[in-house]
Amino acid sequence: MRVHLLSIGDELLLGQTVNTNAAWMGRKLTEDGWRVSSVSAISDSPEAIREALDRGLAEADAVLITGGLGPTKDDLTKHVLAEHFGTELVMHEDIAAGIQAWFESRNVPFLEVNRLQAMLPRDCTVLPNPLGTASGMWFERPGGKVVVSMPGVPYEMEGLMLNEVLPRLRSHFELPTTLYQTVVTAGIGESSLAELVAEWEDALPAKGVSLAYLPSPGQVKVRLGVQGPAEDREALQTLLNDEVEAFVALAEKHVIGRGDSGLPEAVLSALKERGQTACTAESCTGGTVASMLTAVPGASAAMWGGVVAYDNSVKVAQLGVAQSDLDAHGAVSEPVVLAMARGARERLGTTWAVSTSGIAGPTGGTPEKPVGTVWMAVSGPDGERAWCHRFGSQRERIIQRAARRILTHLHHAIQEGGVKGLEE
Amino acid sequence: MRVHLLSIGDELLLGQTVNTNAAWMGRKLTEDGWRVSSVSAISDSPEAIREALDRGLAEADAVLITGGLGPTKDDLTKHVLAEHFGTELVMHEDIAAGIQAWFESRNVPFLEVNRLQAMLPRDCTVLPNPLGTASGMWFERPGGKVVVSMPGVPYEMEGLMLNEVLPRLRSHFELPTTLYQTVVTAGIGESSLAELVAEWEDALPAKGVSLAYLPSPGQVKVRLGVQGPAEDREALQTLLNDEVEAFVALAEKHVIGRGDSGLPEAVLSALKERGQTACTAESCTGGTVASMLTAVPGASAAMWGGVVAYDNSVKVAQLGVAQSDLDAHGAVSEPVVLAMARGARERLGTTWAVSTSGIAGPTGGTPEKPVGTVWMAVSGPDGERAWCHRFGSQRERIIQRAARRILTHLHHAIQEGGVKGLEE
Repeated sequence: MRVHLLSIGDELLLGQTVNTNAAWMGRKLTEDGWRVSSVSAISDSPEAIREALDRGLAEADAVLITGGLGPTKDDLTKHVLAEHFGTELVMHEDIAAGIQAWFESRNVPFLEVNRLQAMLPRDCTVLPNPLGTASGMWFERPGGKVVVSMPGVPYEMEGLMLNEVLPRLRSHFELPTTLYQTVVTAGIGESSLAELVAEWEDALPAKGVSLAYLPSPGQVKVRLGVQGPAEDREALQTLLNDEVEAFVALAEKHVIGRGDSGLPEAVLSALKERGQTACTAESCTGGTVASMLTAVPGASAAMWGGVVAYDNSVKVAQLGVAQSDLDAHGAVSEPVVLAMARGARERLGTTWAVSTSGIAGPTGGTPEKPVGTVWMAVSGPDGERAWCHRFGSQRERIIQRAARRILTHLHHAIQEGGVKGLEE
Repeated sequence: MRVHLLSIGDELLLGQTVNTNAAWMGRKLTEDGWRVSSVSAISDSPEAIREALDRGLAEADAVLITGGLGPTKDDLTKHVLAEHFGTELVMHEDIAAGIQAWFESRNVPFLEVNRLQAMLPRDCTVLPNPLGTASGMWFERPGGKVVVSMPGVPYEMEGLMLNEVLPRLRSHFELPTTLYQTVVTAGIGESSLAELVAEWEDALPAKGVSLAYLPSPGQVKVRLGVQGPAEDREALQTLLNDEVEAFVALAEKHVIGRGDSGLPEAVLSALKERGQTACTAESCTGGTVASMLTAVPGASAAMWGGVVAYDNSVKVAQLGVAQSDLDAHGAVSEPVVLAMARGARERLGTTWAVSTSGIAGPTGGTPEKPVGTVWMAVSGPDGERAWCHRFGSQRERIIQRAARRILTHLHHAIQEGGVKGLEE
């Protein structure tokens, strides 16, 4: 069964909003056995909506629309849908009462424009949206194809998908089983990895197993997939598991995790398995390493906290960095990141600590330490070790790459039981 | 001039990758006067690429393709493009030498699959990509329409766009002037804001000014746009400026910033204007507030750092929270967030400090303090003030909303010159 995702909104075309909705929906639908045939983002205009709707219905069994349902004047979707399905907009009094209650419970004035959000097509199933004021709409075409419209606000869309749309899709369509597993590797490039597993990979198509490489800074995810009738689920799962294990055996020393887990989850699992803890001492990454770790549910068992030592006074007062080291070597230096990591580990009392200090730019670079230079260190039970990396010239990218890199170093250190055995 | 953005890759349909490329390209192209007609994300299959390319060329003057150019076997774009343009793939020896140099400079083995990346269409302009191994390709159709293919890795695409594609598009096409300005509001809902400015808004279409509301948690961005021939640029700019000022006059007390700046930038500007500084004491937000502030270029002048006090031991040792308060009230409580903010402000020596402590879930909720409960405080020159908020049930969203909310409180406090005059 194929689904087309249609995202409406000029803000997506202007790049003011990133289309995270499509990614979230893609994940959930894939888990349910849907194949997303394509994603379109289009303008808030009746012609664009009409055309995209026709195209989506031509290519897929269901079209899921997000956006274009707010109370303000740039919203047109429901008019176009009413026209497409040959129906008209009527006031749904029960929905109007619900919207009014929503506003009253928040002590926000209920306005006429809000009441107009209950003007909805007569011949559709209205999907209640308790998280907002724009209802979802479910339409069925004579041939069985389905069109669903949802608001574009991510958590409202997510609530509607989980509570209404996915269950209704499951009962309306007979879905095949589609299974995916992802293995995360780090420290090896896409080409070298492909060469390492070439023989195994060549045999996959004949077995009906799909493979994709998903490179991102510092890591390559490898995704394996199988699809088949629902009754073959067990056999498909076995096939997939076997191929995942075959891949892991071939690429073993580069594998850092499974699933969409990635580095922070891999670090936290490695810590928890050993009953260990960690903390952070961040300068240039400014809290990014800590927020990546604490974003993981259950992080508090192993991640105790950290210090964001952006100003040098904080490095001295909160981490015990010597002013003389700052004066002699500068904040972006080996002695300073070693002292930061050591200070954090001692003061917060954790098994491990990591530190970063670098020049994220756009200003502050020098010929010896250009923008992108980042010193980082790991402090552990057997001492400290520091590394110096260069991460290009874009501030956001420097921060992200530095954060990922220090977590990779920490992950290796935890696995090795110390920093002494690590590569420079 | 219209451009269609075509993103290739199953990972986009499966939701394993968010299409940030399209948003980045949309921003840059809009600045240059392009209108992005639509965005498609499609599968790595020759049929899907062929079909999408034809559709894109039918609707737009240029089609910019990203993805499908890596060294591994799931990449097909260049074959489809060669076929579409009636040409064939040939070895470009200069490009092969460049790729080999790229690998050698990184001490990474140069493999045969990497050399194959220099097999490129004979009749196209190869766009050098010094940041990676997949070259860009520029094709021109007899009628003047253009197709460009770039790798999907964001920073490689960005480099190609800035250095090659945007300049070439500027000289190939005659572009109209399109200008946008965005005003950021907080503390007012989309509907109330629309009602507040309704009369002004009704007059905009006649003047040729477009308006859109872009709501996100805790704020609503309002985007105004004008478009016209290049020679009218000055008049368009004046028209746009006038309407922006008219909007700001109407919505004044809700306006927190201009441009795509948003809250962190507004907070840092407010601090710098006053020669003040701030720091953070974060529990449930785990470094997110600090990382939002330090992501802004030039943050170090006003943002000194902070403490991520995830474990209670860190709250006591690093922030001076009394163990008795933790025992009596729990970590998620008014006395604890007040002590955290006060402790951070005193120990880091800043003008302001903010703190958060909450239950981000999925576990840890109780009937009195369900998941989503977040206490937060601001400490300033005239004392401390605390607030308790509820932010739904999704961990990521709770963290993001809490971080934005405490920055909104801080922004108000800075503007008011203290916490005493703030609303509860």
